[in-house]
Amino acid sequence: MDLTKIDHPRVVKNMSILELKQLSAEIRRFLIEKLSKTGGHIGPNLGVVELTIALHREFDSPKDKLIWDVGHQSYVHKILTGRAAEFDTLRQYKGLSGFPKRSESEHDVWETGHSSTSLSAAMGMAIARDLKGTDEYIVPIIGDGALTGGMALEALNHIGHEKTDMIVILNDNEMSIAPNVGALHNILGRLRTAGKYQWVKDELELLLKRIPAVGGKLAATAERLKDSLKYLLVSGVFFEELGFTYLGPVDGHDFEDLLENLRYAKKMKGPVLVHVITKKGKGYSPAENDKVGTWHGTGPYKIETGAFVKTKEAGPSWSALVSETVRRLARTDPRIVAITPAMPVGSKLEGFASEFPDRMFDVGIAEQHATTLAAGLATQGMKPFLAIYSTFLQRAYDQVVHDVCRQNLNVFFAIDRAGLVGADGETHQGVFDIAFLRHVPNLVLMMPKDENEGQHMVYTAIRYDDGPIAMRFPRGNGLGVPLDEELKEIPIGTWEVLRDGCDAAILTFGTTISMALKAADELAKDGLSVKVVNARFLKPMDEAMLHELLESRLPILTVEEAVLQGGFGSAVLEFAHDHGYHGAVIERMGIPDRFIEHGSVSELLHEIGLTSTHIIDRIKTMVPRKQKRA
Amino acid sequence: MDLTKIDHPRVVKNMSILELKQLSAEIRRFLIEKLSKTGGHIGPNLGVVELTIALHREFDSPKDKLIWDVGHQSYVHKILTGRAAEFDTLRQYKGLSGFPKRSESEHDVWETGHSSTSLSAAMGMAIARDLKGTDEYIVPIIGDGALTGGMALEALNHIGHEKTDMIVILNDNEMSIAPNVGALHNILGRLRTAGKYQWVKDELELLLKRIPAVGGKLAATAERLKDSLKYLLVSGVFFEELGFTYLGPVDGHDFEDLLENLRYAKKMKGPVLVHVITKKGKGYSPAENDKVGTWHGTGPYKIETGAFVKTKEAGPSWSALVSETVRRLARTDPRIVAITPAMPVGSKLEGFASEFPDRMFDVGIAEQHATTLAAGLATQGMKPFLAIYSTFLQRAYDQVVHDVCRQNLNVFFAIDRAGLVGADGETHQGVFDIAFLRHVPNLVLMMPKDENEGQHMVYTAIRYDDGPIAMRFPRGNGLGVPLDEELKEIPIGTWEVLRDGCDAAILTFGTTISMALKAADELAKDGLSVKVVNARFLKPMDEAMLHELLESRLPILTVEEAVLQGGFGSAVLEFAHDHGYHGAVIERMGIPDRFIEHGSVSELLHEIGLTSTHIIDRIKTMVPRKQKRA
Repeated sequence: MDLTKIDHPRVVKNMSILELKQLSAEIRRFLIEKLSKTGGHIGPNLGVVELTIALHREFDSPKDKLIWDVGHQSYVHKILTGRAAEFDTLRQYKGLSGFPKRSESEHDVWETGHSSTSLSAAMGMAIARDLKGTDEYIVPIIGDGALTGGMALEALNHIGHEKTDMIVILNDNEMSIAPNVGALHNILGRLRTAGKYQWVKDELELLLKRIPAVGGKLAATAERLKDSLKYLLVSGVFFEELGFTYLGPVDGHDFEDLLENLRYAKKMKGPVLVHVITKKGKGYSPAENDKVGTWHGTGPYKIETGAFVKTKEAGPSWSALVSETVRRLARTDPRIVAITPAMPVGSKLEGFASEFPDRMFDVGIAEQHATTLAAGLATQGMKPFLAIYSTFLQRAYDQVVHDVCRQNLNVFFAIDRAGLVGADGETHQGVFDIAFLRHVPNLVLMMPKDENEGQHMVYTAIRYDDGPIAMRFPRGNGLGVPLDEELKEIPIGTWEVLRDGCDAAILTFGTTISMALKAADELAKDGLSVKVVNARFLKPMDEAMLHELLESRLPILTVEEAVLQGGFGSAVLEFAHDHGYHGAVIERMGIPDRFIEHGSVSELLHEIGLTSTHIIDRIKTMVPRKQKRA
Repeated sequence: MDLTKIDHPRVVKNMSILELKQLSAEIRRFLIEKLSKTGGHIGPNLGVVELTIALHREFDSPKDKLIWDVGHQSYVHKILTGRAAEFDTLRQYKGLSGFPKRSESEHDVWETGHSSTSLSAAMGMAIARDLKGTDEYIVPIIGDGALTGGMALEALNHIGHEKTDMIVILNDNEMSIAPNVGALHNILGRLRTAGKYQWVKDELELLLKRIPAVGGKLAATAERLKDSLKYLLVSGVFFEELGFTYLGPVDGHDFEDLLENLRYAKKMKGPVLVHVITKKGKGYSPAENDKVGTWHGTGPYKIETGAFVKTKEAGPSWSALVSETVRRLARTDPRIVAITPAMPVGSKLEGFASEFPDRMFDVGIAEQHATTLAAGLATQGMKPFLAIYSTFLQRAYDQVVHDVCRQNLNVFFAIDRAGLVGADGETHQGVFDIAFLRHVPNLVLMMPKDENEGQHMVYTAIRYDDGPIAMRFPRGNGLGVPLDEELKEIPIGTWEVLRDGCDAAILTFGTTISMALKAADELAKDGLSVKVVNARFLKPMDEAMLHELLESRLPILTVEEAVLQGGFGSAVLEFAHDHGYHGAVIERMGIPDRFIEHGSVSELLHEIGLTSTHIIDRIKTMVPRKQKRA
């Protein structure tokens, strides 16, 4: 069938099991082919083909609410809700989002990107339903990885307590992004191999009937035992303890099993957890055989071989540069311990993990715990290296403030994917970190201009023993500059002049340095001499250089790939006014006060006006007389 | 015995049980008496007298690490570690902190204030121990309330998985701050009444031996049953599922029971959870009989009667004003739903709860869930009112950004205890919220000048349907101004001129308005005419008024009881420079870049230089010629 003809999920309501299977095969072919060109989250989506079809068959979206946790597994849902034709634009500028999006479809009732939010959202929708007296089903679909996030556990605690009607689909694929970890994972593992709950319950009932009558204490114990069948090994005791009815395990690729259990769940009162076992990458062998998470999200690939289409990158990946430099230092510094919240692959920590398995901790999707774990280590003289994406560090803001910075502990935050990230879009842009970290006392915050400075900054961070220190760095690869053999410390709070000039100064850092230098080159042709400063320390700033600049009365332009409110430019304004430079001409370029959607980084930069052309134009307006002279 | 003579916890090592009991009585008398004058967390500390003594008897602090979650229950620990003599200064300026403080004692190995951090910290310390090859015990003490915080659950998941040696003391007093809620609470309730695990295990073993031999499937089931004793109803199955050995329940006021179980726990490998039942307020009947949390933390009281020493307050409590206004509006607006993360008493929600029990949700200590629950409700057309302290909203920063503001949902954040909070000190100061909220797109952020404007702002927030809106308000009571009968909307983004002037302008909001007005009065005597603006909307700001002010070229002083970096003053600087007012004289006063310790708010304001006198001095330096003229 032509998937682009599907305009409503009701299409699956009257299909036979055979037809559903044919549809599944069709969807898999479609996904494998489309994603080979656009890239995307192929593994998670191939795993939920039958599950998504079964959900749309048993529930009436959008009346019933399907809530996709994390959301990168919503492609099949998108196909069934009339968006197949748009898959050529997936994750591209102005194209189909890789996540649920309320503006795309009435069937997308909750937007995601970050993990573990679905249960709280579902509880809100369920309470609203109960207060309004309507009768829709609320169906959050959450992965085993997302379940370990603290807020999902907070929600379980609340839902189980309130006994709210809700059908939680636990999509258990044994790995979220990397192989999953944690005690919860072990519990799920036992459940997977334990066989069906209902069957064992029946058996036990029979067994207990055969227990001979006994008197006294033993009789009481036997009674208690009979009353508590649900607490037996083979049941989903963990979830039942929390107040859920546990159904499963269900074969997530078997329509009969899926449909039967969903129908059963619909008849029950209170919260139900349907434990569905799926296989990530199902139906495409390179993805299906993936053991480490390479096929979780990918760029374009060759369908026949599963070979990734290589893009030419000048330098090493930033994540690898950082983790490999830490690894090198860890050889002589036993204090170093690496921590990742479920991103060992994304943060390129495989090398560190294999060389120092005892000093590497993947704590699962648990950014809060990861951060305070680092703090605990630091109290004992260790040097924790927390590899974390900028957007996910948002989850640990309080832990950064209350546990790490307030106690002034030696934690090294390696903030990956800082700045615009591109195709993942608005939930993943790493553009807030300067604004939410700059005001936290005791923290040193820096960003290198290239990978060579980056490795020296890693060294600086490891050597720094006066409190917390954070280095932000972009998604993707370095510039391809030569790397010094020997690592050296960069004095904290020092900037460097990359290019001198006497008509204006650009203060910038990280990825925007190259556009500033390019702008300065162009402006030179117009007779304008522009100073470019690598403002590599966002906090503390280089006060001596700032005084010098402000005393020189050069017009100053700050440029940052980060939100403008409370950002680096703001810090420069604060400094100028705090020191009485009230007449200073200071202008700021950066990311405006709105969420930035998906697209390539260069498209997005163009959209928001953050390119060398924009810098040139701005500098010209700031130096009007000079411009005329030229 | 004279408690002030205790200089090391080893003093309890050789005491007889009788002597330990006498010491307990002594400590209770001491606490009841001292806290009757200073106020403090009386209930939690009376509950842990025997537990704290037992811990110091069985463990060797500071080699062994006692980690107090939340930390307001560390008074007995402070007495036993040589700080009894300082209790007259408890929670006072430059006096003894109400929380563990590393600078106070080597026995305070981890600082707290916010809840649920102890397990992560303990895990960090345990990993450090294992890497260093030392053998200290790691002993986090966590309450049943704190256990529901997401990061504690994240840590449980990690600890249980790694099987790290650690003795977790679960201090279960059935209520943390308010009566505790949640499925976990129900689990603990079952455990409390279930009797001893070990005993039942023995009984069952006996029972199972009597099961007659059966064949086939039944035999297999019986085997499985025998293998899985630990999963029976009466055990701490929830914790055992997570990989912990469960010991308990232990009577937290019985030394024999406590010491025996602690000794047993010390012998075990892997993580152990000792479930200790304590009674909050034990030994002081007004606190012991408290059912709602009034005696959790108090001001001074009369020992004999348990009557609180009333302080004269001009106006109603801010929390009450807000919640009662919402309650009034809820009578005609069925969309309104109230949410609190474990603070129904602190947020004065009792009235709302009794009138609208179905529309009030106390979710426990779970700020992340509370926030996204609100978002879920808002997607269904409800109007959630989230009552949350500024300092605890830090825990939900990502949920504010990713779930509420990104989806532009109609959530009303009532941010209580904004600004300095006084005696609770540096972990609780609500001074970061402007800096961590101002850069979040779509959010309206406001603060009223008095309780009358406050009630109108509540009305404005409830009526506002264009996205999230937040009102911050201080701890304590209003000014005592008359309250209008009829509520009215305040146009979003409008400021008001409270006092006109032509020499300088002060832009300020909330609590600092009164000091600005006072300063203006004093300056008038010196011939300086100072404009005072109530900048009640921090975002969006009143752009028309800002243009007018900047065009008038008045020197501008911004004053805020919040951190300066990225704060309101920063926003004014940004506006001025974004609109080309480069010559504007703008100076800022607020909270400097360090953590502010405990003390009365006025002492702290004096210390940081945020008083009317400081405003006067600053204005005089900003208007030098006028000053001479006077």
